[in-house]
Amino acid sequence: MKIFGDTNSGNCLKVKWVCDRLRLPYRWIDIDTMKGETRTPEFLKLNGAGQVPTIELDDGRTLAQSNAIIRYLARGSELIPADAYAAAKMDEWLFWEQYSHEPYIAVCRFQMVYLKKGISDLDPEKVKRGHAALARMEQHLAASRFLVGNTLSLADVSLLAYTRVAHEGGFDLAGYPSVRRWIGEAEGMLGLSPAR
Amino acid sequence: MKIFGDTNSGNCLKVKWVCDRLRLPYRWIDIDTMKGETRTPEFLKLNGAGQVPTIELDDGRTLAQSNAIIRYLARGSELIPADAYAAAKMDEWLFWEQYSHEPYIAVCRFQMVYLKKGISDLDPEKVKRGHAALARMEQHLAASRFLVGNTLSLADVSLLAYTRVAHEGGFDLAGYPSVRRWIGEAEGMLGLSPAR
Repeated sequence: MKIFGDTNSGNCLKVKWVCDRLRLPYRWIDIDTMKGETRTPEFLKLNGAGQVPTIELDDGRTLAQSNAIIRYLARGSELIPADAYAAAKMDEWLFWEQYSHEPYIAVCRFQMVYLKKGISDLDPEKVKRGHAALARMEQHLAASRFLVGNTLSLADVSLLAYTRVAHEGGFDLAGYPSVRRWIGEAEGMLGLSPAR
Repeated sequence: MKIFGDTNSGNCLKVKWVCDRLRLPYRWIDIDTMKGETRTPEFLKLNGAGQVPTIELDDGRTLAQSNAIIRYLARGSELIPADAYAAAKMDEWLFWEQYSHEPYIAVCRFQMVYLKKGISDLDPEKVKRGHAALARMEQHLAASRFLVGNTLSLADVSLLAYTRVAHEGGFDLAGYPSVRRWIGEAEGMLGLSPAR
């Protein structure tokens, strides 16, 4: 299997982390989104939406959307709860991540790290919604070890990707102690060095 | 089971359509988002994120996020492909819907229908991205009966919700003949009257 990804992108790292955790063999093909490498004719043949991550299976079939990819690769593993309702709560977090977390926290980080914007140039509405997302995680994680009960699941992998680098987007995690505790635990289980 | 939903919201209708299609019994509890009914203390107990749709199972457990809800309710049914790769392609569309379609097409419709904005008051970037989403669907549906092969799946249910009312958000579907063909077929299979 090939993973087409940009190591600066949390969405791409999710796929790498799941493969590493589950010891799935893969070849990582570096795609530099800042250099327009997702817009070449070759890449658009793999994914017409021009987005990374995209995976190509050994038989040539492709799959996009980070959370759809990790859900496919982790099927039948301990990263997806066996109980249907617990798996649905995991899905709730996965969809929430793409709708209510990534568009604010990842986008602010992108603007600061890659577009070199200052923190005061960020859209205040995006900053506000990013903090609302962190507050919701804080409330949940104050009472739960991981996002779905006591076991690491894809919900944690997915939310970890941009939460652990939220400070790079101007989001100070000092006010979110349970989120910081969870980041440390999830990073440890995935064998990652702390991001700060 | 109770469904807390607003019949003006495509995200809520997805849940209703899946229940009707699969003949799952439910009680619909009308929640008027425009009147702040997702912000009452009672509602926030059901869903701390204050969003509809939210379902409450008979044992009191709750679930949110439209696509997570329909994935849970339709488990084991013909609305989710039995083949793992086909199910993953369905998930790819579900995540794409929430990230690359709903934030543009549903949001423009919301602004025109509920906030009474004129078409010229819409954010041009949102309009552009909405058309990009429709163009991607058009390209795919020109060669495929439904979004995942020849069978109606949750991908169609989910994308149908706001695509069939895209014109209410200023998106003229005249230039998307395959999308219009698909809307008609999907509406027929779900027993819906045409939205225009």
